[in-house]
Amino acid sequence: MRTFDDLIKPSVRRLQAYTLTPHRVPIKLNQNENPFGIPPAIVAETLRRVAGRDWARYPDFVPTELQTALARFAGWQADGVVVGNGSNEIIQALLTILVAPGTPVVLSEPTFTVYRLMVEVLGGTVVNVPPRADFSYDIPAMLEAAHRTRAVAVILCSPNNPTGVTVDEPALRAFLTDFDGFVVVDEAYHEFCQQNFVPLLSDFPRLVVLRTFSKAMAMAGLRIGYGLMAPELATELGKAKLPYNVNFFSLAAAQVAVEMYADELRPLVERIIHERARVSAAMASFDRFRLLPSQANFHLLHTPHIPPRHLFEALLAWGVLIRDVSRYPLLGEYVRFNIGTPEENDALLAALQAIHPEAAA
Amino acid sequence: MRTFDDLIKPSVRRLQAYTLTPHRVPIKLNQNENPFGIPPAIVAETLRRVAGRDWARYPDFVPTELQTALARFAGWQADGVVVGNGSNEIIQALLTILVAPGTPVVLSEPTFTVYRLMVEVLGGTVVNVPPRADFSYDIPAMLEAAHRTRAVAVILCSPNNPTGVTVDEPALRAFLTDFDGFVVVDEAYHEFCQQNFVPLLSDFPRLVVLRTFSKAMAMAGLRIGYGLMAPELATELGKAKLPYNVNFFSLAAAQVAVEMYADELRPLVERIIHERARVSAAMASFDRFRLLPSQANFHLLHTPHIPPRHLFEALLAWGVLIRDVSRYPLLGEYVRFNIGTPEENDALLAALQAIHPEAAA
Repeated sequence: MRTFDDLIKPSVRRLQAYTLTPHRVPIKLNQNENPFGIPPAIVAETLRRVAGRDWARYPDFVPTELQTALARFAGWQADGVVVGNGSNEIIQALLTILVAPGTPVVLSEPTFTVYRLMVEVLGGTVVNVPPRADFSYDIPAMLEAAHRTRAVAVILCSPNNPTGVTVDEPALRAFLTDFDGFVVVDEAYHEFCQQNFVPLLSDFPRLVVLRTFSKAMAMAGLRIGYGLMAPELATELGKAKLPYNVNFFSLAAAQVAVEMYADELRPLVERIIHERARVSAAMASFDRFRLLPSQANFHLLHTPHIPPRHLFEALLAWGVLIRDVSRYPLLGEYVRFNIGTPEENDALLAALQAIHPEAAA
Repeated sequence: MRTFDDLIKPSVRRLQAYTLTPHRVPIKLNQNENPFGIPPAIVAETLRRVAGRDWARYPDFVPTELQTALARFAGWQADGVVVGNGSNEIIQALLTILVAPGTPVVLSEPTFTVYRLMVEVLGGTVVNVPPRADFSYDIPAMLEAAHRTRAVAVILCSPNNPTGVTVDEPALRAFLTDFDGFVVVDEAYHEFCQQNFVPLLSDFPRLVVLRTFSKAMAMAGLRIGYGLMAPELATELGKAKLPYNVNFFSLAAAQVAVEMYADELRPLVERIIHERARVSAAMASFDRFRLLPSQANFHLLHTPHIPPRHLFEALLAWGVLIRDVSRYPLLGEYVRFNIGTPEENDALLAALQAIHPEAAA
């Protein structure tokens, strides 16, 4: 009689199940969401468009209207746009068509944890190339590792979650020129640094750019993301993506968000960038915490004197939820928080000063 | 320089991309949707509950409220409920944790095409055991094949799409007793035959029951499905499922649908069952088409005198969209249509008589 151990793949069985304890707190700075919330104009227009839509009917097999809007928005071609339930679903589908047991994929950890999880579920091998001391990507070492292992793909998050560093364009171009596997750039946070690698797509058919509506676009609750890639790759990826994967409501909301981005969302992004500078300046005077520079809507905070778990709990008692990232590689002394509203940022600053008075200037 | 052929898995590369040409027609009987549409009371209550919910925030990591509601609704335990973007996502996650290259999975085709697609994308081997001449499952042959190949799982759709046949409980019990792999029963259409294998879950920890909100529950547009299984398996499956996979709007709608099922949806199911009997009686008198009995909300129609593609096109010209299933194994002379509203069914009957007058009684 076979047991679960005999039936379920060992690569899955040995993974730790990912869990998260929910916390209900007034100030939530732990998931890099847009703190200003969804603009009411986007809600109203979405509800107007879906009114009368019969929920009993499947969405379109291919969401061509949204693909076309995203292509125009991002500067690419519609048949090279793939829409998913968050960009996670695009990464999942891409890895599914590339990764067999033992297939190497290059990452640079610490980075977004879902990449490793998905490679390992598929039985692939993560080739981890640590960043430099300032957490910048060590591109020459990554390229060497990619060549040595004949990796099928490398995944770069830029700005990187949770470090906030970016890959610079010359380095990326060098990588794309020298490496003949896929290069995935996850631009989940690109709006906060105006970095944009989409223009490279036409020269490099093995480049894949991922985007999400969960951060700047203020729609984490609706689970929308997309990938930009060569049309031939989009066709292959479509084979591993579930048919009718995205519901009609999220499709409509994403369409509205793209149309209203300049008026409704871009100003919020600018406020977040402004707040990031203000928080950064305020924390520069702390002598017991050190804030790392960031190109995203979040920061790493180095806390060598208070263990991250204690700092997390202390801030929680103040009603501020941040992310303890101390279990990530190299981040044993770090926590992460995202930029909130001005009031939320003030509360975070006040709480940090109260928790550790000598940290204040 | 490696090409896409070198980088993308051969099992994916050789798959035909699934495409679907959209047709806008007055009468749509091709996707087994609920023809009466979503009840307005469910729409109103869902919109009431999500009003004020900030779209910028992620859904709960685990949708415990819906899991609890589904557990009560289906008669199982909440920690054995997994919610997905349609039941497709549950099948996908299950196969991802079970199927490595070469892993055998037993199917009986013709059946829902997504099963084979997903097994093959993962590099697994489909062991196909054809049904008997009346399309009933050949359970002894399936059991023999499962043993011979040491299959990791067998997938039974009951009632089966597109044939409408069910597996009977003694046969399923025998299978569960004799076979030590997973047995997946896709109950996407169970409401139309009142069949329910959930009570077997407590005796058979390798049984998985799949359910969907896309058919009787009138929510194909919102992409909600769920799996019922042993809690230990739910934990393993959770490792391959994307975090925050289902958006807050669909979660809320599903919760409302479950709460309002008896008042709002069950009567629609009864009307569909009633219409099924009426359509079946009306078509019994056709002498050039033969309707197969069905326990679901759709029927196979045997059309030995008009090629399925011609019949499909002819009905389309009458404004009736059905499904040409002639490319499915064994179904070279068949089309499929689902039960519509009384008016839609009358239109289908009239169109069939007009297309082929001698088919009329």
